[in-house]
Amino acid sequence: MRIVVTGGGGFLAQKLVQSLLIRGFLADTKGRRQEIEKLVLFDLTFAEKDVLDDPRLEYRAGDVCDPAQVREAMIAADSVFHLAAVVSADAEANFDRGMRVNLDGTRNVLEACRVGTSAGNAVMKLVYTSSIAVYGGEEVIDDRTAATPLNSYGSQKAAGELLLNDYSRKGYIDGRGLRLPTIIVRPGKPNKAASSFASSIIREPLTGKSTVCPVSPDSHMPVLSPRRVIEALIHAHDLPGESFHPWRVLLLGGIAPTVGELVEALGHRAGKRFADLIEWEPDQFIQCIVNSWPKRLEAKRAEVLGFQRDSSVEEIIEQFIEEELAGKLPHLA
Amino acid sequence: MRIVVTGGGGFLAQKLVQSLLIRGFLADTKGRRQEIEKLVLFDLTFAEKDVLDDPRLEYRAGDVCDPAQVREAMIAADSVFHLAAVVSADAEANFDRGMRVNLDGTRNVLEACRVGTSAGNAVMKLVYTSSIAVYGGEEVIDDRTAATPLNSYGSQKAAGELLLNDYSRKGYIDGRGLRLPTIIVRPGKPNKAASSFASSIIREPLTGKSTVCPVSPDSHMPVLSPRRVIEALIHAHDLPGESFHPWRVLLLGGIAPTVGELVEALGHRAGKRFADLIEWEPDQFIQCIVNSWPKRLEAKRAEVLGFQRDSSVEEIIEQFIEEELAGKLPHLA
Repeated sequence: MRIVVTGGGGFLAQKLVQSLLIRGFLADTKGRRQEIEKLVLFDLTFAEKDVLDDPRLEYRAGDVCDPAQVREAMIAADSVFHLAAVVSADAEANFDRGMRVNLDGTRNVLEACRVGTSAGNAVMKLVYTSSIAVYGGEEVIDDRTAATPLNSYGSQKAAGELLLNDYSRKGYIDGRGLRLPTIIVRPGKPNKAASSFASSIIREPLTGKSTVCPVSPDSHMPVLSPRRVIEALIHAHDLPGESFHPWRVLLLGGIAPTVGELVEALGHRAGKRFADLIEWEPDQFIQCIVNSWPKRLEAKRAEVLGFQRDSSVEEIIEQFIEEELAGKLPHLA
Repeated sequence: MRIVVTGGGGFLAQKLVQSLLIRGFLADTKGRRQEIEKLVLFDLTFAEKDVLDDPRLEYRAGDVCDPAQVREAMIAADSVFHLAAVVSADAEANFDRGMRVNLDGTRNVLEACRVGTSAGNAVMKLVYTSSIAVYGGEEVIDDRTAATPLNSYGSQKAAGELLLNDYSRKGYIDGRGLRLPTIIVRPGKPNKAASSFASSIIREPLTGKSTVCPVSPDSHMPVLSPRRVIEALIHAHDLPGESFHPWRVLLLGGIAPTVGELVEALGHRAGKRFADLIEWEPDQFIQCIVNSWPKRLEAKRAEVLGFQRDSSVEEIIEQFIEEELAGKLPHLA
């Protein structure tokens, strides 16, 4: 199989690619296990440190906003994981950029898959990452909750969902969309997502750095760990297309701890001195956004389809320590 | 005020324009009653018979798919009624055309309003016509029902809604979207909407012509009359923007008679010979689409905001006889 991953230089894509290389196969449209022969990573740039040495990998520089580049990258692909996106706070601050990448970019991918399919190949699978940012402030979200986003990122993602579903219904692609909760703990540096702090309050202390928590301890956040997200992307890819009928977009479940619970678990696992690296500096802007996030996700459909959530905040913290710190905590000065 | 109506050559636009010319005013963004000085009708072409002689009217040929033409038409406009669309069966048969007109066309209008606003004018009002085609087969629809369309027209309209809302939230426009039920009785000829028969089974007999009903008498259809739709468009325009907060799109109510009830009412009003002009020829394709339409609309929000629905099928039939037949039925041979 030939697999394309857009946003291939990003954190999720790297995790996905590592998993796929180890796994070595994916299910094709008929559910048959097929070897992964080529994994094309498509992104504007790639950090040199992230480039892996595997003959199956192809690093392809290109812009998801350029229809021709996208089309070319997807020639003869069997499946596409479309992860390229402008994140929430960035899409909010740079409206046109968000529209171009999140909406037009997605359309370019949809069209490239359609062209690939109409060239006589099997219908191309497309795994699309949407977000719970599509919701509009409800406390409890379930599979029937309407997408009425109150931010540009969510609006663009929700528009992409509609197209993903319609392209699938028309038989142009075989699409599968996932509405992801906040992903913690992200490695690396804080990004421009409004939810960036959710990772920072675990990652920064555990790497010996101080950080600021801009929201109150009783703020709820529905979260999913990187490992669970990667499992979900692969599971969504491998499920038969009919599983998603008639609506190709699925809410993923996740636990929704409070920020206080997260920090408490951090203290238990690593010690109070690590938790003390968090300074509490309320930011009304971010608090306001976080207040609009759901406090509970009732993702029955995902559960029935076999998607897994994390069982506890402890598990999420442990995962970060294992995967990103090789199991070791730093010595605090 | 300077008002632009896209799809200005269409049936709804003509009705709207007639109403606006008689009324003579609309509310501006501050709720102040302002005289309508110019009404710009924007469409690909205009039928000569439809062209009215009024100094306030400007007929402007142009393509909603052309950003520059749209921008130019909307220079210095205060409000836009965006009615241009490719209807359901057409959008289904011609996917790319539907995307171009219904989605890209809407984006052109949104951008033109945004440019107009950023030029230092007051925020432009935009009334957007969406449809209950955004729903995905639920029997009962209410204000919280998710838009999960199973047709291209509905998908494109729902994507437009998301953008309308986000442009409004950003302060780029002052948008108001209405999800319209099936509009009956449309004058003129059958069109390419899957719901076209719903008007034909009243209009054709009442103009002395035979027609075919492709669905069973027990099929439900949520309907609204042209008069109520025009009232709704004007009401949506004149309401304060805050009325729509935080979600700029509104489900309109309507009665949902069965096809049998419609035909029975036709027989009562006009006589059995008229009803006998309907031939019943089941068409599985159309029956299937109609089966997916809601059987009841619970549009509380619209009711609270003062939108009116028709009270009976008799009223709808009477309206057609009055407005389109000058109160007179033809003599049947």
